[in-house]
Amino acid sequence: MDIGRVSVVDVMELPLLNDLYQFTMAYGYWRSGRHREAAEFELFFREAPFNGCFTLFCGLEETLRFLLDFRFSSADLEYLASVLPPSVDRRFFDYLETVDASEVTLAAFPEGSVVFPREPLMKVRGPLLVVQLLETTLLCLVNYASLVATNAARFRLVAGPDKRLLEMGLRRAQGPDGGLSASKYCYIGGFDCTSNVLAGRRFGIPVAGTVAHSYVASFTSTDEVQDQALQPASGQEGGVDFLSLSQSWLAKVCHLLQIPPQSTNPGELAAFVSYAIAFPLNFLVVVDTYSVMMSGIPNFCAVALALQDLGYTAVGVRLDSGDLARQSVEIRRIFKLCGERFEAPCFGTLSIAVSNNISEKSLKLLTREENKIDVIGVGTHLVTCTLQPSLGCVYKLVQVNNQPRIKISEDQEKSTIPGSKAVYRLYNCSGEHLPATHPCWFSVCTGLLLTTHYWTS
Amino acid sequence: MDIGRVSVVDVMELPLLNDLYQFTMAYGYWRSGRHREAAEFELFFREAPFNGCFTLFCGLEETLRFLLDFRFSSADLEYLASVLPPSVDRRFFDYLETVDASEVTLAAFPEGSVVFPREPLMKVRGPLLVVQLLETTLLCLVNYASLVATNAARFRLVAGPDKRLLEMGLRRAQGPDGGLSASKYCYIGGFDCTSNVLAGRRFGIPVAGTVAHSYVASFTSTDEVQDQALQPASGQEGGVDFLSLSQSWLAKVCHLLQIPPQSTNPGELAAFVSYAIAFPLNFLVVVDTYSVMMSGIPNFCAVALALQDLGYTAVGVRLDSGDLARQSVEIRRIFKLCGERFEAPCFGTLSIAVSNNISEKSLKLLTREENKIDVIGVGTHLVTCTLQPSLGCVYKLVQVNNQPRIKISEDQEKSTIPGSKAVYRLYNCSGEHLPATHPCWFSVCTGLLLTTHYWTS
Repeated sequence: MDIGRVSVVDVMELPLLNDLYQFTMAYGYWRSGRHREAAEFELFFREAPFNGCFTLFCGLEETLRFLLDFRFSSADLEYLASVLPPSVDRRFFDYLETVDASEVTLAAFPEGSVVFPREPLMKVRGPLLVVQLLETTLLCLVNYASLVATNAARFRLVAGPDKRLLEMGLRRAQGPDGGLSASKYCYIGGFDCTSNVLAGRRFGIPVAGTVAHSYVASFTSTDEVQDQALQPASGQEGGVDFLSLSQSWLAKVCHLLQIPPQSTNPGELAAFVSYAIAFPLNFLVVVDTYSVMMSGIPNFCAVALALQDLGYTAVGVRLDSGDLARQSVEIRRIFKLCGERFEAPCFGTLSIAVSNNISEKSLKLLTREENKIDVIGVGTHLVTCTLQPSLGCVYKLVQVNNQPRIKISEDQEKSTIPGSKAVYRLYNCSGEHLPATHPCWFSVCTGLLLTTHYWTS
Repeated sequence: MDIGRVSVVDVMELPLLNDLYQFTMAYGYWRSGRHREAAEFELFFREAPFNGCFTLFCGLEETLRFLLDFRFSSADLEYLASVLPPSVDRRFFDYLETVDASEVTLAAFPEGSVVFPREPLMKVRGPLLVVQLLETTLLCLVNYASLVATNAARFRLVAGPDKRLLEMGLRRAQGPDGGLSASKYCYIGGFDCTSNVLAGRRFGIPVAGTVAHSYVASFTSTDEVQDQALQPASGQEGGVDFLSLSQSWLAKVCHLLQIPPQSTNPGELAAFVSYAIAFPLNFLVVVDTYSVMMSGIPNFCAVALALQDLGYTAVGVRLDSGDLARQSVEIRRIFKLCGERFEAPCFGTLSIAVSNNISEKSLKLLTREENKIDVIGVGTHLVTCTLQPSLGCVYKLVQVNNQPRIKISEDQEKSTIPGSKAVYRLYNCSGEHLPATHPCWFSVCTGLLLTTHYWTS
């Protein structure tokens, strides 16, 4: 059975990933003989996102790739002809077939630059028809890339330099490509790694991840660990019965922690044992499937101690619910206790990872509290940019044939400043940047040095 | 120069568009010999989005396509081997090479169904390893599709059945594919058309769009209309000087409206004239580039009257700023006045289209006020789902080998109800649905008829 394919965009189709009105306008330009007039558009945003004062400019690399490939196929033009009015002169499509971006000049900030409102992030010069046709795709490539990179940078600023940040938002992104973009630009924004395997392959981003609740819940009894043998790290012959070894450690751990052994979940122990057998060098498991303190942590400690007996060092735990800061402190205390009581140095280096619908706000609260967290996984609020899910970049015509152009608008803030501009970064006499709320640019047409402050006051 | 390509997802890469932990878990299952155990996962959401009571379930078609193609290439497996720990048994990758979704059974609501919290939207049964590996991609395909379709349906409910709704969010979506998904699922949710040309081609959605401010601003004088001739609709020989005709009408319109002729912008008139020459049968232009009442509307009326002289009927205007409802009423009044004074029947059928960062809330306000709006274009708030940019669907294991599985969690609302379930729609004796806040499902494992009300109380 062939029912087609998942509707991800094919790179060859990008020139049609465009608003129809770009083509009707292109025809208007062509019909009035103005299609080759020299035009300049600026791509900018009017306000920094998330009530902040900066944005990381991203999407330049994709833009360059898009421009290099910008060309219409016969099939594209055939479809266009079918949706434009029949009155459109067929020679227009012959002309479009010859169009590419070879005459376009792009001036932009470097990828990842810190940028401010109303600065031209990109200045796009070229034949009027071509630079008009680029608008939607350029906005599409820059808007979300810059927004999510900025969001990631804000999470990084809140978390501080020492926490390890994992992006894990694929399942909540706007479809397959939204997820891929999110992983790429969160990495640029300051995250350390992603859960997204394809992003790892495509962009060389470190990938991370171990085990979900479903894995733990899939086990109900220790009978389900079918192959219970684990070979010691030294590689010596003969496997050890790892389940029995873990069970014997569990009794000791429960005694130390004064937990009734029957409170621990045997399915969870089975899951941990099986996972340790599969990944003896990478044992990090989620500990809140049933009860963190009454089951997850004692089961984890037992398996970590059994691993140590065989010469392996456990990696850590992940928490996905409850009061993450408080639990991390309590868990660290238990690790210290186990490490001392059982002479287990591995307990000194264990990692505590957390996740649970973390937002910038909850991360702020979390990092203000006492906590012993090493790794933070962020998904939904990172990739969907809940606080402000759109950057709102626009692409405005500023001059044609070296003559400035203005749009006035009924809404004052939507009016544009005419003419080509140059962006300056100003420093005070101590060599410090002027405050980010006062970026400056120079209007080539009016000769005025403008600042956002000046403009908005 | 070859610097690669824009990073849109290739359909062949979809099986790797996955969280790494699905693969580590898959290895854990395989290593403990449990990979072929019969498992069932449920895909559901815990709360309806936007503080509403319903969701439109979408993404089924894409899911089916994904399942039909689900297979790992040698290159996929090579990359996987490079990111999983070196301790992983190579035979696992040989096994993965044989895996597909042919043993998976999917039970789901029909595409576009109205669904409620905690109902299984999809029940996915099959070998434990395979159904585990499907989690992330299924969530990615369903979450945003359902969210944006639901958002579109809410805009439709607010707008009522008579307004024409245009989706125009491509430039603010999460990258190319986010934009494509948005267009598709907004159409399913009740929009009439999209600005997205590729969505038109791919899915057969009607596309719409005419002209932006940049087109209008690109003209500064009537000298720029290089070819001023327009042939009458009757097709009779010889073009009419359409610019002069429009100018003579402009004088009459200004007199009627008591507007000083010098208040109208000649560049705007040139833009309208050129656009009318290009699209005499489809003349709809944006009228707020300079001043709606002092320039845009008189210029539009003049060109519409000139078109009528040649036997064409103008289509309408678009407003993109200011008080849309109030302006639409005033514009309709002017259209009526012109229609009567100049005996121009075309003014009785003109369309008023609006856009301007319209949200569900602003649409509500707009539709409550007196207005004469026919078409509403919605972008950012529609495709980014500003009110709640994530649906939060989850995919939870409910049984293995016909034995129910539960996850308890430190957060009560994250606990799951074990066992396979059947969904019922209950009706009262008058044949009406029971309130949507009380959906019911039947737990196969406990024999209990459950309702959301029951569960949350």
